[in-house]
Amino acid sequence: LDYQHVQVPFEITLWIMLASLAKIGFHLYNKLPSVVPESCLLIFVGLIMGGIIYGLNDKSPPVMDSDIFFLYLLPPIVLDAGYFMPSRPFFENMGTILLYAVVGTIWNVFGIGFSLYGICQVKAFRLQDVSLLHNLLFGSLIAAVDPVAVLAVFEEIHVNEKLHILVFGESLLNDAVTVVLYKLFRSFCEMPTIKSVDVFAGVGKFFVVGLGGVLVGLTFGMTAAFTTRFTKDIRVIEPLFVFLYSYLSYLTAEMFHLSGIVAIIACAMGMKRYVEANISLKSHTTVKYFMKMWSSVSDTLIFIFLGVSTIGENHEWNWPYICFTVIFCLIWRALGVLVLTFFVNRFHVNTITSKDQFIIAYGGLRGAICFSLVFLLPDFHRKKLFIAATTVVILFTVFVQGMTIRPLVDLLAVKRKRESAPTVGEQIHIRFLDHLLAGIEDISGHWGQYYWKDKLEYFNSKYLQKILLREYDQPKSSIVLLYEKLERKHAIELAEAGQLGHAPSHPSLLRSHFLCSNNDRTVKIDKKLEDALNPDVLENIQEILARNLYRIRRTGPAYNRHTLPGESEPVEHAKEILILRHKSL
Amino acid sequence: LDYQHVQVPFEITLWIMLASLAKIGFHLYNKLPSVVPESCLLIFVGLIMGGIIYGLNDKSPPVMDSDIFFLYLLPPIVLDAGYFMPSRPFFENMGTILLYAVVGTIWNVFGIGFSLYGICQVKAFRLQDVSLLHNLLFGSLIAAVDPVAVLAVFEEIHVNEKLHILVFGESLLNDAVTVVLYKLFRSFCEMPTIKSVDVFAGVGKFFVVGLGGVLVGLTFGMTAAFTTRFTKDIRVIEPLFVFLYSYLSYLTAEMFHLSGIVAIIACAMGMKRYVEANISLKSHTTVKYFMKMWSSVSDTLIFIFLGVSTIGENHEWNWPYICFTVIFCLIWRALGVLVLTFFVNRFHVNTITSKDQFIIAYGGLRGAICFSLVFLLPDFHRKKLFIAATTVVILFTVFVQGMTIRPLVDLLAVKRKRESAPTVGEQIHIRFLDHLLAGIEDISGHWGQYYWKDKLEYFNSKYLQKILLREYDQPKSSIVLLYEKLERKHAIELAEAGQLGHAPSHPSLLRSHFLCSNNDRTVKIDKKLEDALNPDVLENIQEILARNLYRIRRTGPAYNRHTLPGESEPVEHAKEILILRHKSL
Repeated sequence: LDYQHVQVPFEITLWIMLASLAKIGFHLYNKLPSVVPESCLLIFVGLIMGGIIYGLNDKSPPVMDSDIFFLYLLPPIVLDAGYFMPSRPFFENMGTILLYAVVGTIWNVFGIGFSLYGICQVKAFRLQDVSLLHNLLFGSLIAAVDPVAVLAVFEEIHVNEKLHILVFGESLLNDAVTVVLYKLFRSFCEMPTIKSVDVFAGVGKFFVVGLGGVLVGLTFGMTAAFTTRFTKDIRVIEPLFVFLYSYLSYLTAEMFHLSGIVAIIACAMGMKRYVEANISLKSHTTVKYFMKMWSSVSDTLIFIFLGVSTIGENHEWNWPYICFTVIFCLIWRALGVLVLTFFVNRFHVNTITSKDQFIIAYGGLRGAICFSLVFLLPDFHRKKLFIAATTVVILFTVFVQGMTIRPLVDLLAVKRKRESAPTVGEQIHIRFLDHLLAGIEDISGHWGQYYWKDKLEYFNSKYLQKILLREYDQPKSSIVLLYEKLERKHAIELAEAGQLGHAPSHPSLLRSHFLCSNNDRTVKIDKKLEDALNPDVLENIQEILARNLYRIRRTGPAYNRHTLPGESEPVEHAKEILILRHKSL
Repeated sequence: LDYQHVQVPFEITLWIMLASLAKIGFHLYNKLPSVVPESCLLIFVGLIMGGIIYGLNDKSPPVMDSDIFFLYLLPPIVLDAGYFMPSRPFFENMGTILLYAVVGTIWNVFGIGFSLYGICQVKAFRLQDVSLLHNLLFGSLIAAVDPVAVLAVFEEIHVNEKLHILVFGESLLNDAVTVVLYKLFRSFCEMPTIKSVDVFAGVGKFFVVGLGGVLVGLTFGMTAAFTTRFTKDIRVIEPLFVFLYSYLSYLTAEMFHLSGIVAIIACAMGMKRYVEANISLKSHTTVKYFMKMWSSVSDTLIFIFLGVSTIGENHEWNWPYICFTVIFCLIWRALGVLVLTFFVNRFHVNTITSKDQFIIAYGGLRGAICFSLVFLLPDFHRKKLFIAATTVVILFTVFVQGMTIRPLVDLLAVKRKRESAPTVGEQIHIRFLDHLLAGIEDISGHWGQYYWKDKLEYFNSKYLQKILLREYDQPKSSIVLLYEKLERKHAIELAEAGQLGHAPSHPSLLRSHFLCSNNDRTVKIDKKLEDALNPDVLENIQEILARNLYRIRRTGPAYNRHTLPGESEPVEHAKEILILRHKSL
């Protein structure tokens, strides 16, 4: 037996296997996941595992390594979150999310830090040796809402999209704030004296860390998109690039002490549309599937390890400090949400209701990031107290809040997520309104959201797409392919009969009068529509319609800032009219 | 800048990125891959990289770590090979493959070992200090044909299926022999005296290592199949189990000093059909895609590392020894193939032609396995000579043989692989012949290949499928789904008209008279057949037809050893007749 030789991969594989089997186990009994969130069950499994290890070895079980967490377990989850982020609600609520993430987190850090320092002054608790700086350091790691925990709980309760994106977006973007404050206070703890220059440098760092992360992420994202232009002959390694470049963006950001989470999210969101257009349908299925799989396993492992690491002798149980930490976490978050939402609601038509505010405050779950950060603290005599307090806060938020949030959502009748995807009609209307509002904003000289979106869309189609996309691919939907085949056949018939000079093979043309074709074709298409009812195909059709509607608006003589009437593709337009006339004869 | 922190994952990611980009680069210029095999190009890239590293650092570049090779790079390639192994030609030629793999490899080991020992006796070469045992040890590592190198070259030249499986199968299965002989001679080298008992123990080990590997692999494969029975509610982690269990089988086999390659192949081949039936179509796409992607990256990395490791000062250039190694490798392989094929051809109707024999002998490429094994040798004063000889043999076989094999295949007009998949008609005939031959063998009492296959198939459907498969899933092909929908509609019409007691919803029945339906249905199906022409759907249809044809043969009153006439599903049969009669009215 040569266990030494295979130990590392063998144990990693076994842990992943345990995590996957645990997941299967929960789903076998259908009632369980609907009552208790999976995260709680997994922590529970971890606690049992930790207990067994502790019982057998009579020493503390291994603690989750912070390096493993930040380098290997966290990136897949964040990548998945960024890649599948619904970009429309995210950008629409960007301001609110940033306010919660930046101001809200700073509010929480200082609120919790100072109030805990107040508690430390009570002599009966015997905590006088915990300095203000240490309390602020602890506040900086305990204040941040955890994306992994939030995702695990909010994916199961299906609140409305806006509420979801507010909590989830905050949990992702507060990483920059956490990184800066944590590192700032940690270096302050080690410095003999603190100058006011250092404090200002800290404030400046916010922008560097956050915007630097975005920049690194977008750079890698664009490179990834550019690379997939050239993978036509080796489809099989296409999915790899999505993973490699996003991981590199995370590692590079971490290397320069920027926010890795922000970087990987910017990378994923930036590359998504180009990569999707470049890679094959099967590659894309693989990317999506593997991302979900990977993040799901990481997530499972994190919660199990959380449970395992809880067992042991790393804790100092000073209950007053621990209890007040939990209470302050709740109070300061609730206050922060109330105050910030008051300002947000003053500037928005679509306000955040008080029910939503309650869920935002209540959904501020803490998780593995706090846990890893507290273990990364430099050794000092009260570290074990901080570990104990962090553990209790995490367990409290995940178990108590995580398990009660679903009944509360039911009780308060919080608006839920709509079950069905928007219909084609709705999508057309939304798109139409976007263009209308962009035009209005442009005419009135107001640089609002729609104005910038339109600008960006123009920049995208004018420059980015040309660099990043391979030549315009054929759409993959079988219904369109059939239609094109019929069109081609019909064109050949026409050509043979001498009615038409050349075959109308221009795909945009073919697709644009998609629904107004002649009789025997519509019969065939109706039959095709029968199997077009599954969501994948519907999505495809919606995408094609959306893409082409946009093009038609732009090729037509409508008002457009960037083109003069009739300037764009007039030849194509003339051809289209010619062929339509031919047909009506 | 904090490079230390992210170094390990960063460098791994960069290596993989380099490998992927190199692959893209080759395919950009279309002419190159058709002349030079990719493996040569990759080694060339590695040589350049090695040269650069050597030039910059002025010391030998890092050598490919044997542990990394055996634990991380080799398993994906072998898993891919095993999973996509064409099982019919493999099992049909099992005897020949085993003969080549076991007897052929032993022949080569001893042939090369003894003749090199002869060379060492020539005083002019100054090699008298290399003992017979060391030569045999060297022979044991240099004799084995390498699956990675063979796959890289043979996938590009498209020889006929039998020839491909003979070379490729040999390269996979000789692993057991290599492991045993290599470890045997290595332990002999360290022993003071060798007893005859040790030699016999070595012979016994062959069977333990090979059969043990098969057993470990099958155990894990069946467990994997069983696990995927329960993943219906969490489709997203299904692909994971395929990878986890096969990797565990490899690691477990390695742990017990069994053949990991044999284990992972047995695992992959064993689980394939059950896993495919249990997991969703998208999961299966992901599994296939990721396997191909992973093996392709591993393969690329191996060849690049081979190139990098060649540069440096690890070599002792004793040219007589090196040249004779190359010559003996060629001669003994050619002789071995000739002799073994002579015996094989005496017992087979479908003989191996002399052209095929030449390609088998010439296709005996050496690769990274030899390379890793030679670095794993215990330190002794001539290790660098062995490293140099191994490097030259690998480069010679990969470059000279790898690049000339394609022109030779053209020149000799070796039978190529057929381009198209077998038609449905051909498949039905093959299947029919299989049953016929199984029946003939059974009646004549000859326990041949068909007899055992039939037995296995019976065992599979009687026991294994019941344990390992979830309930019988609906087939996924849209053409069948449409047909069933139409059937259902028709049945409802019949039921409403009072013509039929209950709807004929039994899927086997529905599908069995698939092509003999009434008129308006066939029209619709014809239209569906138009898009059924892509290979995926065709494959699906073939699979369904094959499955059902089998069932019909067994449910009918044909001769069958395991059922009495009319015993099986007579009710279904009667129902079928009844409904057919109803229709003809």
